[in-house]
Amino acid sequence: MPGRILVVDDVAANRLIARAKLTASYYDVIEAESGEQAIELAEREQPDLILLDVLMPGIDGFETCRRLKSGRTTMHIPVVMLTALDQQADRLRGLDAGADDFLSKPYPDMALFTRVSSLIRMKQMIDELRLRHETSRELGLEGLTSIDAGLNFADSSVLLVCDSSDLMAGTVADIRNRLGCAIETAEGEAAARALLASNRYDACVIGPNLSDGEPMRIASLLRARPETRQTSVMMVFPPGDLSKAHLAMEMGVADYLTYPPDFAELTARLKVQLRRKHYSDRLRSSMHDTLVMAVTDPLTGLYNRRYTNNHLESLIARHQPGGQGLAAMALDLDRFKSINDSHGHGAGDEVLREFARRLSENVRGIDLVSRVGGEEFLVVMPDILAENAERVAERVRAAVEETGFRLKDTPAPLSVTVSIGLAFHRPGEAGSTLINRADAALYASKNSGRNMVTLAAAA
Amino acid sequence: MPGRILVVDDVAANRLIARAKLTASYYDVIEAESGEQAIELAEREQPDLILLDVLMPGIDGFETCRRLKSGRTTMHIPVVMLTALDQQADRLRGLDAGADDFLSKPYPDMALFTRVSSLIRMKQMIDELRLRHETSRELGLEGLTSIDAGLNFADSSVLLVCDSSDLMAGTVADIRNRLGCAIETAEGEAAARALLASNRYDACVIGPNLSDGEPMRIASLLRARPETRQTSVMMVFPPGDLSKAHLAMEMGVADYLTYPPDFAELTARLKVQLRRKHYSDRLRSSMHDTLVMAVTDPLTGLYNRRYTNNHLESLIARHQPGGQGLAAMALDLDRFKSINDSHGHGAGDEVLREFARRLSENVRGIDLVSRVGGEEFLVVMPDILAENAERVAERVRAAVEETGFRLKDTPAPLSVTVSIGLAFHRPGEAGSTLINRADAALYASKNSGRNMVTLAAAA
Repeated sequence: MPGRILVVDDVAANRLIARAKLTASYYDVIEAESGEQAIELAEREQPDLILLDVLMPGIDGFETCRRLKSGRTTMHIPVVMLTALDQQADRLRGLDAGADDFLSKPYPDMALFTRVSSLIRMKQMIDELRLRHETSRELGLEGLTSIDAGLNFADSSVLLVCDSSDLMAGTVADIRNRLGCAIETAEGEAAARALLASNRYDACVIGPNLSDGEPMRIASLLRARPETRQTSVMMVFPPGDLSKAHLAMEMGVADYLTYPPDFAELTARLKVQLRRKHYSDRLRSSMHDTLVMAVTDPLTGLYNRRYTNNHLESLIARHQPGGQGLAAMALDLDRFKSINDSHGHGAGDEVLREFARRLSENVRGIDLVSRVGGEEFLVVMPDILAENAERVAERVRAAVEETGFRLKDTPAPLSVTVSIGLAFHRPGEAGSTLINRADAALYASKNSGRNMVTLAAAA
Repeated sequence: MPGRILVVDDVAANRLIARAKLTASYYDVIEAESGEQAIELAEREQPDLILLDVLMPGIDGFETCRRLKSGRTTMHIPVVMLTALDQQADRLRGLDAGADDFLSKPYPDMALFTRVSSLIRMKQMIDELRLRHETSRELGLEGLTSIDAGLNFADSSVLLVCDSSDLMAGTVADIRNRLGCAIETAEGEAAARALLASNRYDACVIGPNLSDGEPMRIASLLRARPETRQTSVMMVFPPGDLSKAHLAMEMGVADYLTYPPDFAELTARLKVQLRRKHYSDRLRSSMHDTLVMAVTDPLTGLYNRRYTNNHLESLIARHQPGGQGLAAMALDLDRFKSINDSHGHGAGDEVLREFARRLSENVRGIDLVSRVGGEEFLVVMPDILAENAERVAERVRAAVEETGFRLKDTPAPLSVTVSIGLAFHRPGEAGSTLINRADAALYASKNSGRNMVTLAAAA
C-alpha cells in the first residue's frame, strides 16, 4: 500500500537513509527538518503517514506530535515516532502525545514496512469517511454531534482473549483501573467466539497462549465478519513468532506487542486503538446523522415532505388488501398568517413546534408524521380502522383547541385551532390521489368555519 | 486481508481442497454445490468473495455469475471464476459475464491468494461506500442519479503507458474501437507523470518495457496521490517477473497480465476495471448528491433555511469592514394563501417555482438565494453597494408584477406581487439581527399596501 510519507528529522543523514529505504519500496517521500516545518508541511501536503524523530532542536517530537494530533486537518494522519534507544519512558510519552506507533532506532526494515503499510491502509479507509464528512462540513451539515468531541474511555469496551493461567490475565484489573473501560476476558477460542457473536467490542487483545485454539484464527474471525470488522485487534506474539506479526498486520490486525508485554505500554497502545476506533465511529455516525437531517424538518423535528413523498408509496404497497385500512390526515393551522403578522416569526415558530408536539403525542408510534409546508402537516396512518382514525383526528383537533399555547414573549396563552381533512385509502389508489382527497377534505373544513374534521368523500 | 469466501463447485473433493487452502490462510469458508444455491447463499450471507466453478449441472458458472452481477444485493461481491483448463474462450466469456477475475485449474496458491486478497481489500473499501448508500436508500434519499445505471464506456478515459516501439502500443486503436473510450498513451515515466498531473483517468495500463523509468514506480505514484488513488491500475509483467505481481497487488494494483498480453483479454479485463471504477464513482457522487439534497428546498431547488442559517455568519465574517456592504433581502409573496385556497396546492407550488426562477434570474451568481418558509424567501448579497442592492430589490419586485404567472390548469395568467424588506449589514451586527431588520422592513412593506420595497432603518 504505497503512499506519501513525511520524514521529520533534524539530521540530514537520517532523512537520507529513510528516504532511500522508503523510495526503494515505492513510497513517495517528503522531508522536514524541524517540528515547525513538519506541521506546516503536514497541513499543506496531507501525507499518508509521518515518521517523526523525538530529539530535535526547537519543538521536540512529542510536542510536534501533540500539535499534529490536535490540528483539525492533521489529526487523522498516523504518526510513527522514532526514538534513539529502546527507551520505555519515551515510548509511553510518545503514545501519550497521540503517536500511533513508534520504532526504536536502528529499526529493522521489516518492522518499518509492516507498521507503515498497516497504518497507511487504515488511514486510507478513514480518508473515505473523512471525504464525506468534509463535504458535510462545507455544506454546513456537520452532524448533530461534533467529530472532534473527546473520548471517554469509560464508554469503551475491550475483550481480552487469554487463558486464566496466562500472566496477561493479571492485566485486566490494571487496564480497568487505568482506563475505566469495560473489559471482559475470554478463555480461548471457543469462549471468544461465543462472546463475539453477541457483544460488540471496541478493541480485542489476543494473547499467544491459548489452550484450545489459535490466536491468528480469532483475529481472522474478527476481520472476516462485517459485524466485528470495526473492532481494533491487537495481538501479543512470543519473540520467536514475530514473523507472524507481518501476516497479522496484512490481515488487518492494528497493532502487536511481544510477549510478555509491558503492561503500561499495552495500556498506552490500547488507548491509541480506542481513540482511532472512536474517531472512525464518530465519522460514521455523523454521516448517518447528516442523512437523517436531510429528511427532517429542522424546526419541528418531524419528517419533511421529501421523506413522506418517498415513503408514501411503499407504505401503501405494504398495506394488505384484506387488512385494516390506511388513512391520511391533512392538517393546517387556522389563521396562522395572523399569528406571524401580529406576534412575529419567532412566535409563529413556537406555535409550530408546540403544535408538532401535541400532534405527535396524539397519534400512534407507527404513524408517519410530517411537516409538508409552512403550517401544513400530514399524518399517514397504516393499519387503522376508519372509526379509530376519526377518533385520532378529533383528539388532535381537541388537543389544540382545549389549551392555549403559552409563548415566551406573549403574556396570555394564545388560542390556536387546526382544520383537518381525513381520507381512507381505496384499493389501487395512488398515494398522491389519496393526499389530494385529504387536502380537499381539509379545504372543506376551512370553508365550513375551520377548527373541525371533515371526512373525504368515499369516491 | 481475511474475509468470508463462498466456494461454489459441484465436486465435493474440489470444495474440500479449496476449503483446506483457504482455511489455512485464515479465510472463513462457506460452500455451495450449485449455481442456484450459490445465489441464495450469496444473498443471505454476503460473502466477501465468490470462487465459482464454470462447469456445473443446472445453471453453469457463466449464468450464475451473470445473475450474481445483476442482483442488487450481490452485484458488488467479487467473483473469481475457475476454469478447468487455460481456455482463452472461457476467460473471455467469464469476464463478459461480469467476473472480476479467474484462475485456471490447477491454480498455483500464490496466484489464488494474490488475487483473492486484492479483491477482498477492494470490496471492503467499496463496502464503506455502500453502507452510506444503503442508509440513504432506507431514508428514501437515494441520490438524483441511480447507482445501478449502466456504464457507457465512451465516457471512460484510459491511459496506456508504454514505449511506441512496444507491441502494446498497437492495441490503442483496438481498445478504442472495442470500447469506444478515450485512450491516450504516454511514452515512459516522464510522459506519464506529466499527463497524470493534469488529467484524470479511470484506468491506467502500464506496460513492462519503458526506456526511461520503472513500471512499479508509476503504479506507486498513482496509488500514493489522493488525486489519482481512484484510478484503476493494471500492469503487464514479463512471465519471469510474476513475483512482482504479488507486490504490485499489495500496493493496490487492481489486475495484471503476462507479457505479451492477449489483446482480447486485455480489453475484457479493462472493461471489468472500468465497471468497478464506475460503480465506486457512482456511490461517491450519490452520497454527494444526497448531502446536497439536505440543504436544498425540493420544490424550488433553492437553498433551504438550514443552509442559510449555517452560512450567514460565515458570509458576514468573510465580509471586509473596509469593503462594499453586505445586504439581506427578505421577500414574501403577497396574498399567497388566497392563491392556494382558490387554485389549489398544485397551483401554489407552480407559483413558488416560477417566483424562484424570476428571483434567481434577477440577482447575481454570488448571492445566496434561499426559501426559508412557505412563501418566504431570503437573499444575502455580499460585496454590494447600497444603491445596487436597492436596484436589485426593485428589479425583482418589478419582474414579479410585470408579467402574470401562467399556470398549467388556469386559463388566464395569474397576477402575483411580492413585498420586500432590505437591510444593510452594520459593523459587528449578528446575522440574526440583520435578518430581523430585513423582516421588519418586509412587514412595513406589507402594512403599507404590499408590492413594494422598504429599506430597514439604519439603526
